[in-house]
Amino acid sequence: MNTNTPLLTDLYQLTMAAGYWKSGKAEQEAVFHLFFRKLPFSGGYAIAAGLGDVVKWLEGFQFGKAELDYLATLPGRDGKPLFERGFLDYLATMEWRCDIDAIPEGTVVFPHEPLLRIKGPLIQAQLVETALLNIVNFQTLIATKAARVCLAAQGEPVLEYGLRRAQGPDGAIMASRAAFIGGCVATSNVLAGMTHGIPVRGTHAHSWVMSFDSELESFEAYAQAMPNNCIFLVDTYDTLEGVKHAVTVGKKLRESGHELAGIRLDSGDLAWLSIEARRILDEAGFPKAAIVASNDLDEHLIESLKHQNAAISVWGVGTKLVTGGEQAALGGVYKLGAIRDENGAWDPKIKLSEQAAKVSNPGIQQVRRFTLDGEFRGDAIFDEDHGCPEPTHIIHPGDVQRTKQMPEGATHEDLLKPVHRAGKLITSLPSLQDIQSRCREQLTHLHATIKRLQHPHEYPAGVEQTLHERKLAMIKAAKETTP
Amino acid sequence: MNTNTPLLTDLYQLTMAAGYWKSGKAEQEAVFHLFFRKLPFSGGYAIAAGLGDVVKWLEGFQFGKAELDYLATLPGRDGKPLFERGFLDYLATMEWRCDIDAIPEGTVVFPHEPLLRIKGPLIQAQLVETALLNIVNFQTLIATKAARVCLAAQGEPVLEYGLRRAQGPDGAIMASRAAFIGGCVATSNVLAGMTHGIPVRGTHAHSWVMSFDSELESFEAYAQAMPNNCIFLVDTYDTLEGVKHAVTVGKKLRESGHELAGIRLDSGDLAWLSIEARRILDEAGFPKAAIVASNDLDEHLIESLKHQNAAISVWGVGTKLVTGGEQAALGGVYKLGAIRDENGAWDPKIKLSEQAAKVSNPGIQQVRRFTLDGEFRGDAIFDEDHGCPEPTHIIHPGDVQRTKQMPEGATHEDLLKPVHRAGKLITSLPSLQDIQSRCREQLTHLHATIKRLQHPHEYPAGVEQTLHERKLAMIKAAKETTP
Repeated sequence: MNTNTPLLTDLYQLTMAAGYWKSGKAEQEAVFHLFFRKLPFSGGYAIAAGLGDVVKWLEGFQFGKAELDYLATLPGRDGKPLFERGFLDYLATMEWRCDIDAIPEGTVVFPHEPLLRIKGPLIQAQLVETALLNIVNFQTLIATKAARVCLAAQGEPVLEYGLRRAQGPDGAIMASRAAFIGGCVATSNVLAGMTHGIPVRGTHAHSWVMSFDSELESFEAYAQAMPNNCIFLVDTYDTLEGVKHAVTVGKKLRESGHELAGIRLDSGDLAWLSIEARRILDEAGFPKAAIVASNDLDEHLIESLKHQNAAISVWGVGTKLVTGGEQAALGGVYKLGAIRDENGAWDPKIKLSEQAAKVSNPGIQQVRRFTLDGEFRGDAIFDEDHGCPEPTHIIHPGDVQRTKQMPEGATHEDLLKPVHRAGKLITSLPSLQDIQSRCREQLTHLHATIKRLQHPHEYPAGVEQTLHERKLAMIKAAKETTP
Repeated sequence: MNTNTPLLTDLYQLTMAAGYWKSGKAEQEAVFHLFFRKLPFSGGYAIAAGLGDVVKWLEGFQFGKAELDYLATLPGRDGKPLFERGFLDYLATMEWRCDIDAIPEGTVVFPHEPLLRIKGPLIQAQLVETALLNIVNFQTLIATKAARVCLAAQGEPVLEYGLRRAQGPDGAIMASRAAFIGGCVATSNVLAGMTHGIPVRGTHAHSWVMSFDSELESFEAYAQAMPNNCIFLVDTYDTLEGVKHAVTVGKKLRESGHELAGIRLDSGDLAWLSIEARRILDEAGFPKAAIVASNDLDEHLIESLKHQNAAISVWGVGTKLVTGGEQAALGGVYKLGAIRDENGAWDPKIKLSEQAAKVSNPGIQQVRRFTLDGEFRGDAIFDEDHGCPEPTHIIHPGDVQRTKQMPEGATHEDLLKPVHRAGKLITSLPSLQDIQSRCREQLTHLHATIKRLQHPHEYPAGVEQTLHERKLAMIKAAKETTP
């Protein structure tokens, strides 16, 4: 199915678009920010991901005949057409003309920081909201999960095995992409390998073993067919007997000039079995044979197995990596920050809420990151239209009474970089491999306590003080004069 | 992206395929079953879904030139090609030739029951494992979630709003499809509407309100543009003031021959706000205006709001519906049941495990459902090769000491129905509307205690006693002679 179409959206984006068109506001310039409010997995950081697929999706942002014909069939509540013909004709000629600034994929990011900033005709910036959220929410969630899993594995290779439990075919492919960004070295998903150039890995399943009269016979047949790809799954019947069968076949492989690559454990007590399997393999002369483990792993189980000195050298992680496991969605949102008025000045906008955490930040936002002695020391969300004062003070996102000054002598960098100008790509996007490297490098700049899996230290990221004060004034004004 | 390709698979399916081809077993006839071991959401039932998309995916089951060229590039651990040319040539001519029997979509199903049964050449039945699991696991999960949410809403309409938080674009579209099967009346996802004919719904977001100088002005502009689609989102600034603005515009709408369709609440205390909003609307002469509620809802929150007599008439459910929320994957598996030997007889197969629950059932399985007085009374998984004895006894899945006789006088039906024969579709698949009706009808045959959200009564579904005895004998034999 082709999902690169502007109809990958919520209907209300189209009814609002019709409204903007009807009320003459369609071309008014607006700026929207895509951000999340809460770090996933109760963790200390997130990894930005999805921009590459956003750019690809926007290449398909044209309303074709089939799309417009479909929209023309939609009824309103009185049975009459929902959309006027004039509006559909307007859509037919629409071309993407917005500016996009984005935090590069693989960057560590924090709550309320705009990952994407879309500036352009109100109608266009509004219409793309849902697809952008779909892509960035999911890939940022999974890249973050992968980074956590890979940190738990302490540099040992992590393979992504999730296709069978992923949420739909391209749920799986996007998950493979994001998992690679977060640090996985390979995927089992062949189509993800072909599409994104991710290394692919795999050997055999239990059904291979079961289709032969004995396990030993099955290993021998596999070694004959694929002597250069032998990792035997040893738990179909009795795990440690299986390891011994792997050793038997490993010796024959060696005689024929090949080498046993390893074994795989997929059930039972992985700590105990891996230690026993390691002993059998070592004693038989296969100290280099890898022990691959899988079976509903996540960062917490890996950390626990590490504490138990499990002799596992490669980690296969599936379901809980590609779906996020305990957290299946990042709650990213897309909010209007400002609209340009008739005189060409930016009019900042704010959304109030019964829930304080849902009050949005106004303005044209940028994120400034401060680095000292090779360590990221804090981020300030500021309004480009007002600039970022120095020294820079930020407001703690959870406690507006607390402020923090960005350290003196720190260098700083503004994280949002130009991607589209007037609808055209003006930068070259990095390869997936480069994005993975960036992610790995970024994580080295975070203090270890921020990367802790549970109850991490809080990274200082907040709203720049003068922006915060303008926001407070807007809230006060709005509450005095109910609009 | 086109995901209708046989490369939507795990690499190990292809390396095993190469092994089957190399060892002369490729064409040996085998039967596999797709089933899950545990009901999702700690619930009492699941809703089968995904078959329609499985059939569509199989229409694309041919290895094309691009796929084969990619496979030819993959290296083994010694840097030499992983796949022999002869094997790739074999794939190039492969045509789907398997039989499929399946439980129709919208049917209530229980652990260990095969939702799909694939019979045919070992190599083919193996190659499709991963894609079939991907599709059926996810859609069954979401159809089940939707059924739970709709039961909690007690017949009031539930709208699926999940695109922005779904796991990838077709994760969203498959979720819309499955949510409709489970009982949702419409989706916000326009592409899902176009693709599957699902009704679409939507009005406007907070950004619409924020883009005007006042809320009242924004409602008036919306009413001008879309007088036949007016559900005003009232919580951008102050919710109950927003309801009053909706009333003001509703009166003007009525003067011009239209009617206020309703309001939407998206934050705050939905119980209190809905009751207050209802009062304002009723007193102003709008007793028929709907109150739509959204904001991270799921079946538990809806049940709680119902207990509080919240005045909500339409439920918008997003994230937790389209991702499964607390459970993001159904752990469905695909296991070999039997292989035909050289003499043409079926040789049943079993997978042992260190974990008892992971021991698979052998044979060529069918599910017989017993109905008495309009109520489903029990399911027996039996081996078609041996038939289902009468009276029928089943073994409790969690306690092999407990047996249960299917009630006397019950009628029965075998749930797996032919879909493919020798690779060809031999039945007409029902429309999505018909599948939704089937689901609704099926649920009326379950006792209310089985449909309870928490700690449901357990439906009697288990392995038929003589099959269970043959399985025990196989386990015993396997443990005596380590294969």
